[in-house]
Amino acid sequence: MTMSVPAGELGTPYLRFDLDGLDRAYRAMRDALPEARVHYAMKCNPARPILARLRELGASFEIASAAELGELRAIGVPAAEVLFSNPVKVPAHVRQAWTAGVYRFAVDSDAELDKIASAAPGAAVYVRLATTAGGSAVPSEGKFGVGPGAAARLLRGARARGLRAYGITFHVGSQMTDPGAWADAIERCAAVMTGLRRTGIRLAMLDVGGGFPARYDSDVPDLRTYAKHIRTAIDRHVPYPVELVVEPGRALVAQAGVMVATVIGVARRGGARWAHLDVGAFNGFMEALETRTALRYPVCDSRDSPRRDSFHLTGPTCDSQDTVRYSVPLSADLAVGDRVYLQVAGAYTTAYASRFNGFDPPGLRFVCSAGAP
Amino acid sequence: MTMSVPAGELGTPYLRFDLDGLDRAYRAMRDALPEARVHYAMKCNPARPILARLRELGASFEIASAAELGELRAIGVPAAEVLFSNPVKVPAHVRQAWTAGVYRFAVDSDAELDKIASAAPGAAVYVRLATTAGGSAVPSEGKFGVGPGAAARLLRGARARGLRAYGITFHVGSQMTDPGAWADAIERCAAVMTGLRRTGIRLAMLDVGGGFPARYDSDVPDLRTYAKHIRTAIDRHVPYPVELVVEPGRALVAQAGVMVATVIGVARRGGARWAHLDVGAFNGFMEALETRTALRYPVCDSRDSPRRDSFHLTGPTCDSQDTVRYSVPLSADLAVGDRVYLQVAGAYTTAYASRFNGFDPPGLRFVCSAGAP
Repeated sequence: MTMSVPAGELGTPYLRFDLDGLDRAYRAMRDALPEARVHYAMKCNPARPILARLRELGASFEIASAAELGELRAIGVPAAEVLFSNPVKVPAHVRQAWTAGVYRFAVDSDAELDKIASAAPGAAVYVRLATTAGGSAVPSEGKFGVGPGAAARLLRGARARGLRAYGITFHVGSQMTDPGAWADAIERCAAVMTGLRRTGIRLAMLDVGGGFPARYDSDVPDLRTYAKHIRTAIDRHVPYPVELVVEPGRALVAQAGVMVATVIGVARRGGARWAHLDVGAFNGFMEALETRTALRYPVCDSRDSPRRDSFHLTGPTCDSQDTVRYSVPLSADLAVGDRVYLQVAGAYTTAYASRFNGFDPPGLRFVCSAGAP
Repeated sequence: MTMSVPAGELGTPYLRFDLDGLDRAYRAMRDALPEARVHYAMKCNPARPILARLRELGASFEIASAAELGELRAIGVPAAEVLFSNPVKVPAHVRQAWTAGVYRFAVDSDAELDKIASAAPGAAVYVRLATTAGGSAVPSEGKFGVGPGAAARLLRGARARGLRAYGITFHVGSQMTDPGAWADAIERCAAVMTGLRRTGIRLAMLDVGGGFPARYDSDVPDLRTYAKHIRTAIDRHVPYPVELVVEPGRALVAQAGVMVATVIGVARRGGARWAHLDVGAFNGFMEALETRTALRYPVCDSRDSPRRDSFHLTGPTCDSQDTVRYSVPLSADLAVGDRVYLQVAGAYTTAYASRFNGFDPPGLRFVCSAGAP
């Protein structure tokens, strides 16, 4: 059942998003880790029906900006439930969020502690620990996070500034296919907690972040395997009970979305066949550019011919960087006007879209597939 | 003199764009190649005051979509002057453009010829030749362009479909620092023209595309050097007089723009210093992501301290891919609230910006620096 066409686009491209698929993904996460509170990383797909459905399901949220908080408040999410997990925030956003009722803020620097002490006096802070793990399709490149020594120092510095030393967090990197990455990071968090306890600081929250993968064109470990690694590491290392938080994004929304595109051109160039779509890297598949060939969206087409041929799949702009996937098998007789369906497209697609070259971001259509597998 | 603040933003980030700098860049292009007609590649920066100023200066335009044509018509550009240079177009856009008066369309495939013959019967087409040159910071990766044999066949095919075989074009790749790249490509175009003449087809236009570089943090050859290579190759190889067209984008607008940003955080992580700005890859510096370290924006800061230190310059989102430049020398005492100026930022910045994580694209402020060097 089609519920709404918020983008007002009758044609393609559009993201067809299955809200019941979102239900299933949320329940899988909750069933795998019932002891954790789920804070959806809304940057991944901030469409309001997705936020509203997750709210109905009992999820909370993590944000990176005041604009994201505004979206949540518009659907009635209490600000006090929201984690401001961006370790470096626009000063005015801290003030706005604090005034609205957000009281928990991530930090990984002295400058951020000063900012929060000034804009949100008395707030609770959780420190972001650096991780060293490989195996993520979108590595973190050192942008956020500090070592255990600095983490402990920052939490002591929080207390010295009249802030509450509230928790510890990390991010293993998006689309992390090694469940062991969490275990290593939790052990490091636990060491910080053990050390801090000696100075009388007891943390309330362990936020193990996001990074849980979606299944693109190859299998990924089951969420229960991730949960087992997390639980075992906590049981083994964490010195006292804390609230456990997870911040999934991709794992909740990626598989519920299919990008529906139209073939606007086919061409043979230098021995290769190209299919040109009305969606490309700039108006929807920025991650194809960002991760080069790491994320391979499963693709099929409306012609569904038994005769297959290999196509490079590219976007509508005259920019050569606009290509989504190379060497994808599609119907050999693919022609202008055919539909191409890019699956597992619910995460980091519409969220990253620009209007480059005059091509609008994809529309959004929400469907419910209740009963579907 | 500040002329307008179209984005309605009082704060940062904003692109400060010097319209007189645009004048100077346009005149440099025209003086270097007075025999060429300049069609600005508007995708590069489609802000209306830029289009209007170029129009006043006598430039024409090249487009990739119906939306781009709409922007040009809004400022009174006659559609007949506009080149539709995207080799693969949305079918409805061909129809709309043809109805509006655009009559020249790029092609590089049979499917595109069929599309144009159907949507714009009798139109003029120019074929896109592939180039093989290296040396571009943004290589073309084979998305567009065919070999000389296929090019000749497509132009004969155009005639067979009742279209006008009008011209030939190529694109050496953006930010091309080897002026010899044009000479090679022109020689290939000339060979196609010579061959076609034997079948009674005489072309009207040689469009040598864009790719002329801007000066980022290192010198690039002078435009007159490019002009000399182009002129020499034409004199030597092109068999009969044709209208010469250039499609500069970056070379006209990059150096006229300065992105003004505010430091929202400073941090030391793993031995490296980071400066977090309110603009990053996703809301303005997508090319930093696209080309990794190839484009280095010159950077300075408002503190302008004699004591310097090396910073990684990153954006406001909680996405680790958001980094603009690594290891930039800035004031050692850089602090939250300081301004950072990213120069040579007029091209492919606001044009590529998304709203990821709730951070809006930069505003635009137009200034006139008449008399400045």
